[in-house]
This record gives sequence, C-alpha cells and structure tokens, in this order.
Amino acid sequence: MLACKLASRSPDSNNNTIIKIKTAGKEISIGDGNCTIIAGPCSVESREQYLEIALILKEMGVDILRGGAFKPRSSPYSFAGLGTEGLKILAEARELTGLPVVSEVMDPRDLDQVAAHCDLIQIGSRNMQNFSLLKEAGRVDKPVLLKRGLAATIEEWLLACEYIMDAGNEKVILCERGIRTFEPLTRNTVDIGAVALVKELSHLPVIVDPSHATGRRSLVAPVARAAMAAGADGLMIEVHQHPEEALSDGEQSLTPEQFAALTERIRAMA
Amino acid sequence: MLACKLASRSPDSNNNTIIKIKTAGKEISIGDGNCTIIAGPCSVESREQYLEIALILKEMGVDILRGGAFKPRSSPYSFAGLGTEGLKILAEARELTGLPVVSEVMDPRDLDQVAAHCDLIQIGSRNMQNFSLLKEAGRVDKPVLLKRGLAATIEEWLLACEYIMDAGNEKVILCERGIRTFEPLTRNTVDIGAVALVKELSHLPVIVDPSHATGRRSLVAPVARAAMAAGADGLMIEVHQHPEEALSDGEQSLTPEQFAALTERIRAMA
Amino acid sequence: MLACKLASRSPDSNNNTIIKIKTAGKEISIGDGNCTIIAGPCSVESREQYLEIALILKEMGVDILRGGAFKPRSSPYSFAGLGTEGLKILAEARELTGLPVVSEVMDPRDLDQVAAHCDLIQIGSRNMQNFSLLKEAGRVDKPVLLKRGLAATIEEWLLACEYIMDAGNEKVILCERGIRTFEPLTRNTVDIGAVALVKELSHLPVIVDPSHATGRRSLVAPVARAAMAAGADGLMIEVHQHPEEALSDGEQSLTPEQFAALTERIRAMA
Amino acid sequence: MLACKLASRSPDSNNNTIIKIKTAGKEISIGDGNCTIIAGPCSVESREQYLEIALILKEMGVDILRGGAFKPRSSPYSFAGLGTEGLKILAEARELTGLPVVSEVMDPRDLDQVAAHCDLIQIGSRNMQNFSLLKEAGRVDKPVLLKRGLAATIEEWLLACEYIMDAGNEKVILCERGIRTFEPLTRNTVDIGAVALVKELSHLPVIVDPSHATGRRSLVAPVARAAMAAGADGLMIEVHQHPEEALSDGEQSLTPEQFAALTERIRAMA
Repeated sequence: MLACKLASRSPDSNNNTIIKIKTAGKEISIGDGNCTIIAGPCSVESREQYLEIALILKEMGVDILRGGAFKPRSSPYSFAGLGTEGLKILAEARELTGLPVVSEVMDPRDLDQVAAHCDLIQIGSRNMQNFSLLKEAGRVDKPVLLKRGLAATIEEWLLACEYIMDAGNEKVILCERGIRTFEPLTRNTVDIGAVALVKELSHLPVIVDPSHATGRRSLVAPVARAAMAAGADGLMIEVHQHPEEALSDGEQSLTPEQFAALTERIRAMA
Repeated sequence: MLACKLASRSPDSNNNTIIKIKTAGKEISIGDGNCTIIAGPCSVESREQYLEIALILKEMGVDILRGGAFKPRSSPYSFAGLGTEGLKILAEARELTGLPVVSEVMDPRDLDQVAAHCDLIQIGSRNMQNFSLLKEAGRVDKPVLLKRGLAATIEEWLLACEYIMDAGNEKVILCERGIRTFEPLTRNTVDIGAVALVKELSHLPVIVDPSHATGRRSLVAPVARAAMAAGADGLMIEVHQHPEEALSDGEQSLTPEQFAALTERIRAMA
Repeated sequence: MLACKLASRSPDSNNNTIIKIKTAGKEISIGDGNCTIIAGPCSVESREQYLEIALILKEMGVDILRGGAFKPRSSPYSFAGLGTEGLKILAEARELTGLPVVSEVMDPRDLDQVAAHCDLIQIGSRNMQNFSLLKEAGRVDKPVLLKRGLAATIEEWLLACEYIMDAGNEKVILCERGIRTFEPLTRNTVDIGAVALVKELSHLPVIVDPSHATGRRSLVAPVARAAMAAGADGLMIEVHQHPEEALSDGEQSLTPEQFAALTERIRAMA
Repeated sequence: MLACKLASRSPDSNNNTIIKIKTAGKEISIGDGNCTIIAGPCSVESREQYLEIALILKEMGVDILRGGAFKPRSSPYSFAGLGTEGLKILAEARELTGLPVVSEVMDPRDLDQVAAHCDLIQIGSRNMQNFSLLKEAGRVDKPVLLKRGLAATIEEWLLACEYIMDAGNEKVILCERGIRTFEPLTRNTVDIGAVALVKELSHLPVIVDPSHATGRRSLVAPVARAAMAAGADGLMIEVHQHPEEALSDGEQSLTPEQFAALTERIRAMA
C-alpha cells in the first residue's frame, strides 16, 4: 500500500542497513544494535564555547558531535548561526577530539562546504520536503541524517528518504524529533510508535532527538530511555555548558552533568 | 500557571500516591515503583471465552483482569458489550482467579452496579469530560482509572481528575492511551512525554495502554517497553485467545503467547 | 465506505429534512433555505440578566434564544451554570418573548427536565460520544442540536447522530463549532469544508457556531458570513450585554450592537 | 506578543497594501477590495494542453493564469513538472492571452528563471520555511505569493513573510491553502478564521486556494464563496479541461463549466 520502494525492507531479508563513519579517532557503526549517541549544543556559538564542550563530550564517551552552523529560525530576527565560520570550528573540534561531526544544511548551494567539513549531513524538519536539497544530498558521498517533518506522515518521511536514495546515496539515517499536535505543554509530541513502525517498514537506522521532541529539559531523559526501549538505534541530544546563556534552545539543553547521568542509565539499559 | 490543584504534587513533598487493591487472592499496589499489569480482551464476549482467558492470564502472572461490559462504539450498529451480564461474568472470573477486575462505566446510572462487581472503575477517553460521570465517580469507594481524552490537553486531563478528587475520591490512576493526530498508519499517537510530565506535575500513578494507543499488534510490545522506560507505573494490554475472531479491536490484541513474551521482557527491564 | 446510514442522503432523493419548532409567538423552520439565528449569552447568569438580553434579542429578530443552565467546564472550580433554576429562567424568557429556547443537557438524568423547559435540546462537543445520552435523546419528542466533538471526524459525527435517530428521534440538527488543531491564536479551527460536506453526505440541517469556533470576538462576524456562504442553515452566536463581565466565554461574546450589525449583513447576503 | 513586525498593521493606519501587476493585456490590483481570480491546471502538462486552457480561462475573465513547472511531489516517482520547458509554455500563454502568469519556485537556483518568465512567484507550503529561498525571493523585483505551511501557525506564516520583506521585497500576498488535521475525508482543513485574522494582524492581501484546501471537487465552490465572505482578496483555483486525465490533482480540479458557474456566483456576491 505504501508507495515506498528503496527504503522498504525486502520481504525475504532481515538485513538492516549499518552505516559506518570513520575518522582519525573513532569508527562508528550506526544501526548495528548499539546505541549511537550524538550530542552537542544547538548552535556553534563561538570557537571557545564549542571546543570546550567538544572536549567535555569526548570525555563522556559521545560518539558524534553536533553543532548548528546554518540554523533554521522561524523569525528573521533570531540568531541564525555562524555559517561558514561555524563549519570551520566544527572541523577544528573534529581534529581536536577525533570524533565525527554532524551539522545541518538548508540550501543546496551550501551542501558542498557542509560535506567538506562534516562526517554526517543533517537535513532538518523544515526541509524534509525540500526536494531540491534531498536530490542534491543523494549525490554526495556522506551519510545523511533525515529528520521527520513536523507534520509529515510516516509515509511522506520514507518517501523523502527515497528521494535521497533514488539519487544515489543509500546511507540514510532517519531521525524522529516530534510532531506538531494540540498539546501546549511540550514543544512537540514524540511519536514513539513511529520509531518501531519505521524499523518495521524499512531497513534503515532510526534515531530519536528527545530535545526538540519535548522542548523541556526534564523530559529529555525519560524520552531518551523510552526511545531506546522502543528500538531506536541512537539518540541526538542537546548539551550546553550554560543552557541559560545558550543563543538558541537553552530550555531544552542538558548540562554536562545531566547528560552524564542520562548516558550512564542508557548504557545500563543496553 | 496550570489551574490544577489537588492532582498537583505539593512543592514540599515527594510523596506519591500509592493505590492498593485487595481481593481474596491478591493485593496490588499501584504506584509503588513496580509495574502493574492489567490485561484481558477488549470485550467480555461470553462466559466461556472470558473465564478461559482469565485463567490463562492468571497463570501468566497478570495483576488485574480487564474486560468491557459496556462498550463505547462509534457506530450504533457495532457490538456494544453484554452489559450487566458481562459484569456478572467479570465477577465470576474474579472469584475463579482471585484477581481484581476492571471495567468501564459510561453512564452515571450504571456506576453502582459496575462498582459492585469490579475492583477498579474505568472512565474511558470519550467520557473524560463527562462531568456528571466524573462527579459520581468521586462519590464511590473504589479507585478510578481515568483515560486521557483523545484530544485532551494534559491540563484538561488533570482537571478531569480533579473533578473526581474534589468530589471525594482521591484514588485516581491516570491512563495515557494515545492522542489523535494526522498520522494514518497508527490508530492514535501515544504521547510518551506526557507520561513523564504527568508524573512531574501530579502525585498520581500513571499507566499506559499501548493497545489502543497504536491499534497495531506489532507496536504493542515496543510501546509497552517505552512506557516503562519513561516511568509509567503499569500497563493495560489487550489479550485475546483468537484475536482474529474478537468482536472488537482484534487487530490490536495480542495472543497469549505474544503477551507472555512481552511481560517477560518488561519484567527483565524492571 | 462510510458506515453512516440514516443520516445519509438517499441517492434517489433531494429531500432535505426540515425541522419545525412552534411556540406561542413564533414558528421556525430549520433547513428550509433560510438562515435560522440562535443567539444569547453563554450562560444564564441571573433572572435579570437573562430576561433583559432575551428582550433585546427578540427586538433584533432572533429566531431562537440560547442560554446554558448546565455548563460543561474543564475545571471543577469554574462557574457551572444555575442548573434547574437556569431552566426556569429560560422558560420564563420563552413565555415573555414568545421565542423558542435551546439549552444543553449533559446528563441523561437531566434530560426530562431540559426537554420540559426547552424547545430544542443541545448535546455539546464534549458529549458527542456520550452514547447513553445520545440514546436517551433519541427517545425524546424534541429536536436535538448535536455539536461536533472537538476531535471528531465527520464520520464519527454522523454516526453519533445515528445513535439518536436509530433510537427513534429523526429531528437532528448538526452544529459545526470548530475542531482542535495546533493553532494557538484561535480557540478552535472552524472546519468550513465540513459544513458543505455534511450537507452533501446527509439530509440534515447544519448550523455553525462561530463564537466557540474562534474564541475571538473580532472573528465571529467574518466566520458567520463564511458559514452562510458555504451553505449553512443557520448560526448560533453568543451575545452578552456586558461581555467583559460575563461569567463564561466573555472574550468571544458580541455586544448587542455588534450582533445587530452582523445579522444585518447576514440578511443582506441571503 | 507576536514577534512579527513588518507584516503587522501599524496601529495608526488603515492602509492596506495593494499589489499591482501590469502586463500587455491587463492591469491587476490585488488587495483593493475586489476579488482577484487566479486559475489554471495544477501542472503545465504540454504546450497544447496549457495554451488551450489558457485561452478558455481568458474568455471567462480570469485575472491571472497559474500552472506548475516545478512541482513538489511527495514521491520521487511522481510527475514533477516540465521544468524550464514549462516556464517557456507559461511565457507563451502570457503572450497569447495578455494575462499575467504565476508559477512555483522550489530552489533558490531556479528563482531567476522563474522571475524572468512569470509575473508573480509562488512559494509553496512545503517551502514556507525554506529560509534560503525566502531570502532570495526578497531580492527579486516581482511580487511573491506565499502559501501557508501545512502545519504552520499564523505567527510562523507571518514571520516567513517577514523574511521576504526584511530582505527587501515588500510585495507579498499570503495564501491560505488548508492545514493538516485528523480529518480523513478532506485533503486538508481550510482555516477560514485565519483569513480574517491575518487581515487583522497584517496589511497584506490574503487569498485562498480552495482546491488544495479540500482536495474534493464538490467542496471547491462552497469554500471559495466562504473565503470571499470571510474577507479574502482573491482565489486560486485549479481548472483542467479533462480533470480525470490530469497528471496531478485531478480529483480537485474543476472543469471549465464548473469554474464558470463558480465565478459567476462569486461575482454576484461582490
């Protein structure tokens, strides 16, 4: 019934896609049954801020560093990231820690420079149906992290994924980050059933972003645990040295201490 | 900011409400940190069907038996339960197994007979804002299981709970059962963040019904595990000897074997 | 595909149901191609308040008076109406003005007294799937105004209507009053397409309540005009002498002057 | 409270923005109190098809011709438009009829060619938060038709509009085209209250697309009339010679005869 093809699990096979990322300091396998942990601040705010948190997170055993250089913001008057300078800081953090880095691309014209500086390319919720961008991402030799659109059905999400795969890039990781509902107390409503259903309907790795999904610091840990219990292959979590001073999304960022407590429990579950 | 009073945790106290149910064969404490498992078919279909599944479930260590006698159905042409006869069958199953039973009440005029036959009274999603029923349930000396309305905000859910408590019954258990969203592949979208948030905002036990929340058999187990990981105090799960022959909701019912596998994993998590 | 039967237009007939209400002073036909206007305050607050507004509205040519005696309120701490006393005031207003009156019933046990005092019985959004109440309303010899549930699909709304018709009462008027969506600037989102679609799928009259649908005074008039343009058979509008002092829903109530301007434009459209 | 600035009506002014489009054959003013009618097929399918319908629509008094050259499609396997060839056909239709043309742009790299061939540039729902595209559209000397995202709040829609205005282009027309809700019988739910509210919150023209908003041919006319009654400045309607053969969205396209009947009624309303 679903119109999806490439992303669908072939009926005679249990072979899940495993996506490997290798840097000087680390080799990651996403989708191999372990929990891949991606962490970092919402935005790269400055060289000092980012390198400091990167080293802290490396110490804590994070697998991949995140940080926004090109930030989609609802208002044109909000901080929109450092752009190319942010990418250079990410590359420096990668060098310093040996960890792979992921950052978002919003414009097909920025894709080459994002791919040049990052190990994993993120396409965000607002661009899940930016078909030009999806097709360009299909021509790049880097894995793509495709977030679900905030009102995208599961079928549309899988079809967006097929745009990338159909254009030649089979290395796609899906990321559930909450959908928009009527509930005002949380930023979004994480669709925990979708995590299990997408694992059933496709052979691709699925991770969950409990930070954007809830928008409330206190809910990040329970939703992260729930995601792993539902079968997710990893987590993407916002961590900031000083959440109250963050230039974006501070209210949903964990402190390093809170994050350490969370990862400890996640690893105990596994 | 929230208008809730009674259901809210008092700022100087960590005392969670623990609800005790005692029958000849079993004493249950809901909200004490363990996982309470409520299971049974959607409807009581016949004496033979119900007593058989009740014994099977007792063997499997279920804590409370469920079974609908008065069934809310969207269409007046659907099977609406056996009514009073169904309640008598539930009471017989209670006698036979020693386990407490729970069933739904939809009409204030049926409350006395439901309370006479059951240990726990369920108020369903469609009646979460049936204020007459809530107030009557506040006058009964039996604990109440209050399901979240399918488009109820968390604040409305807690306020519905306060109708019961304000009328004199403090023994309320909240049940998240999925909210209505745009996603067509699942019956509802379980709001896993709400489980943790309601635990934060109130002192009451919270359980999750992954059967109604998803409407798909294959998703019941992963969502059940997620619920426990998010901090739920228990689960309510539909189990039927022959789901394909069930008079209601067969597509979301587990077989006894599937249910046994689920409870084993849940207990291993705890 | 739809499971609705009674409410559906028979394929070989264009006969729409026309519902007639006759009082000492007025004979109303709802569904005959004219615009029936129901107006009044959200709640009957006192004898003085209600009789005053009733006379003002009669002067303005209103067809039916509304006023809540039993008020469904999310919080148990809000004003919930005057109950039986409110019904008596409505009956007095009916006597005084010669106009028919409509009021909401929430509890099957109150149905007889509401039917005894009112010409039209309202079943509200929160009770659209209170099946006991629907069945009782099917046994009464008064027309029923059935509001759409705030997250009810069109099919569920028609099926709720069939509960009433199947129990013996064919005099049902449907009322669209907005559905719950993610948009925070309005109380609800009026589903204007549903007005036309329900006219296509059933033979019943359909009216629109732009007051609850929007929750903003400034939107009542444009949405009322839109409803009539889409084919609605009437409007239900909240009017209060002093909206800023209303005990419920003041921010969506029109003043008599605003209401007069609205009805003038509506009548010019017709 | 709203973060919108440029799009907001200044409190001391009633000056609505009027957007003028002038071609060899026609001068249009959008937002001047008249109803601007934009019509055409969903996609430009071939030179013959498009020129034929363009001439038919000119005869019927249409103000602006529409036709998709770059089509956003959920699936990579669906017809995605003729691209540059489609734009050339639109330019030929413009020459032939003297009418202005509008077409959608999805990629900032296509903006110059779309602007070169069209009089009005459409940014579609899926790209309402494609901020790179919005900023580029702000640098073009052509008016922009900005559709509301399918789960965008009114505030986000106005802020998207401010991206364009802040980048230098003040000629923005807003287009309500339905939001995503739980209702399965219609493609989307047109937010008729938003039409009036956006007119209140901003000084910009607002039009409505009843074709995408409903996805059902029979609902296009009633929703179009409702839009005008609610205060819309115009309509965008899909018309196809042979809807049953359309390469996209045939089930919501009107035949020329149906469209003629609709425009006649709309003009009688005005």
